[in-house]
Amino acid sequence: MSTINSPTRGRAHLAGDAPRILVIQAPYYRNVVEGMRLGAMAVFQDLKAEVETVDVAGGFELPAALRMAMKARRRWDGYLLLGCVVKGETDHYTFICDAICKGVMDIAVESGAPIGFGLLTVDSLAQAEARSRPDRMNKGIEAAHALVAQIAVARSWGLA
Amino acid sequence: MSTINSPTRGRAHLAGDAPRILVIQAPYYRNVVEGMRLGAMAVFQDLKAEVETVDVAGGFELPAALRMAMKARRRWDGYLLLGCVVKGETDHYTFICDAICKGVMDIAVESGAPIGFGLLTVDSLAQAEARSRPDRMNKGIEAAHALVAQIAVARSWGLA
Amino acid sequence: MSTINSPTRGRAHLAGDAPRILVIQAPYYRNVVEGMRLGAMAVFQDLKAEVETVDVAGGFELPAALRMAMKARRRWDGYLLLGCVVKGETDHYTFICDAICKGVMDIAVESGAPIGFGLLTVDSLAQAEARSRPDRMNKGIEAAHALVAQIAVARSWGLA
Amino acid sequence: MSTINSPTRGRAHLAGDAPRILVIQAPYYRNVVEGMRLGAMAVFQDLKAEVETVDVAGGFELPAALRMAMKARRRWDGYLLLGCVVKGETDHYTFICDAICKGVMDIAVESGAPIGFGLLTVDSLAQAEARSRPDRMNKGIEAAHALVAQIAVARSWGLA
Amino acid sequence: MSTINSPTRGRAHLAGDAPRILVIQAPYYRNVVEGMRLGAMAVFQDLKAEVETVDVAGGFELPAALRMAMKARRRWDGYLLLGCVVKGETDHYTFICDAICKGVMDIAVESGAPIGFGLLTVDSLAQAEARSRPDRMNKGIEAAHALVAQIAVARSWGLA
Repeated sequence: MSTINSPTRGRAHLAGDAPRILVIQAPYYRNVVEGMRLGAMAVFQDLKAEVETVDVAGGFELPAALRMAMKARRRWDGYLLLGCVVKGETDHYTFICDAICKGVMDIAVESGAPIGFGLLTVDSLAQAEARSRPDRMNKGIEAAHALVAQIAVARSWGLA
Repeated sequence: MSTINSPTRGRAHLAGDAPRILVIQAPYYRNVVEGMRLGAMAVFQDLKAEVETVDVAGGFELPAALRMAMKARRRWDGYLLLGCVVKGETDHYTFICDAICKGVMDIAVESGAPIGFGLLTVDSLAQAEARSRPDRMNKGIEAAHALVAQIAVARSWGLA
Repeated sequence: MSTINSPTRGRAHLAGDAPRILVIQAPYYRNVVEGMRLGAMAVFQDLKAEVETVDVAGGFELPAALRMAMKARRRWDGYLLLGCVVKGETDHYTFICDAICKGVMDIAVESGAPIGFGLLTVDSLAQAEARSRPDRMNKGIEAAHALVAQIAVARSWGLA
Repeated sequence: MSTINSPTRGRAHLAGDAPRILVIQAPYYRNVVEGMRLGAMAVFQDLKAEVETVDVAGGFELPAALRMAMKARRRWDGYLLLGCVVKGETDHYTFICDAICKGVMDIAVESGAPIGFGLLTVDSLAQAEARSRPDRMNKGIEAAHALVAQIAVARSWGLA
Repeated sequence: MSTINSPTRGRAHLAGDAPRILVIQAPYYRNVVEGMRLGAMAVFQDLKAEVETVDVAGGFELPAALRMAMKARRRWDGYLLLGCVVKGETDHYTFICDAICKGVMDIAVESGAPIGFGLLTVDSLAQAEARSRPDRMNKGIEAAHALVAQIAVARSWGLA
């Protein structure tokens, strides 16, 4: 997604209690995902959010882990998914990325739960690195802001 | 979608009460989405519709917010979704746009609710601007008219 | 779909009562969809079918209107969907056509209802016109025959 | 799918009763689908299977007919779907083939029923003919063997 | 998926009882799938897992067999799917691979069950062989580790 003309963002804010947030991350490309996670944590700290983090192996496992989280007896106000898939020699990338995005969307559409979706789908690690540095291109920051906005919408309708 | 030979439209009309409409918008590209919203509002004003507007972060969050709206205790007669995704350097655009369209379609197919879907998926901001100016190319106007027609169908069958 | 070697078709026939059929059409490209509708009507007249027609704005609204029809208190023996999407400058066409086809398939797969699906997805209006003239290329005729065959299968298993 | 290095197959065998099989075929390209059906029948004859056959108009109607079969009061041990879609001038082929494959998969995933899926998706009739002759390239034979294996799995778990 | 910079992995470990694992494999390309299975078995042996294996015909049958397994009266702690699809002359490969990945994802998203997904989607057998040798490119090893991690997440939330 082009970030030209994209919004500048200030500090996150959210009416009501500090939210409990679950980060599900697939640190297959460790530095990239860690960069996004740090970006997201800065957003959550502005909200004094309680954050837990769980690791899965790769992007394909993110939606199933999200479903597991929703089946657990635990309660979170929102879910942040972080991962990175890099194109390889085969079509595997396309099939997998497509399935991941549909899987997350399916859960979002069925549950209406607040979800922030930070999955990098890139041609090269260089592209992934450019989207995980501590600047405004950082997609972890973007996904965290999206999640906060979803929690705000849910709260405005008495859903959370 | 080509607009050559597309219908010219007059003022919107709708039998029955003035409808209550929820606009869910993703003002990531603020001017573009505002242009579509203004186009849609003109259509709704012809119907003396009551309109509420809620913001989400980006196109990916539109379907989840639509589900939230349906889970809220509130009642709307129809939902208008407005957003814009611009192609970037990676395949992310394709995966995300595809998931958004499927997500909205899934809710439409499951609920049969009146939905107007105004999502621009473009190669450049110039294309987005050309589809959000106050003229007949404006996709907010088009989506608003589509929504009104869906409400009319629902009412004709006693569903709303 | 290539029509070379496709079946020649005689008059439609169907065991049992004359069917009640709902045509849901998206007359965005008025002449094209009208050509398909006329082709389909000739097929339905051979069966002395009772036909009702409802309009939606565009192809994207066809699946939701089909769901509305199934939720209405009314009963039809089969549903014919007619529409046309023409490729434009952007990828919108691909995302939308894909979502429409999946949406109709989802309803077909969940309900097992007899559905005829006449959606043109074309590069140009010339292609659409070639598929909506009163000859054997007419896709409205083809979709109507497909619907009649689906009703026949449903009846053979006592489902309608 | 490349058939180089694909398995050579002997006679089909299956523990337990001779299975009752429903073949749902879309004989739009009559010779092609008949070639696949004959290939499949030879496999089923080795099992002394009871086979019924029902016709639909085209590939798009296969999933809906499969759902109808599952809703009928009848019982079959497995379902074989046969059809052929040939690429034409437009993108219709891609949208339709994709929807058919997803539709069949959706039923398989929801029901766990034994399904053999013999859909040719080809650029030309010549490719279709090469996959429907009475030799080891015949995709009707392949789909029939796949179905028999699925029935075997279902029986091994007491599901059929 | 590029494996450059991918994680090096040590021995698998898992808190709690030795897991019972079901491997569902499609040994259409026998050596390739056997290579992945052997890689996975080494991972499972580190956990002293009880492993059962069932064969299906091809990749398309993997999701249905997974559903069958979940409907059986048996209990497994996790499921490993192994298969390989090689691109042929037609588009069949794309439609089928896409449907398989969506089918597995659908089950994962609905059930939240621990699933390891080892499907090779390749242009040539040479690519498949390079991903099934006993080295760190082996995708059976990778899928097995992903499954173990999913079981660990499930257990951490009291789900298994």
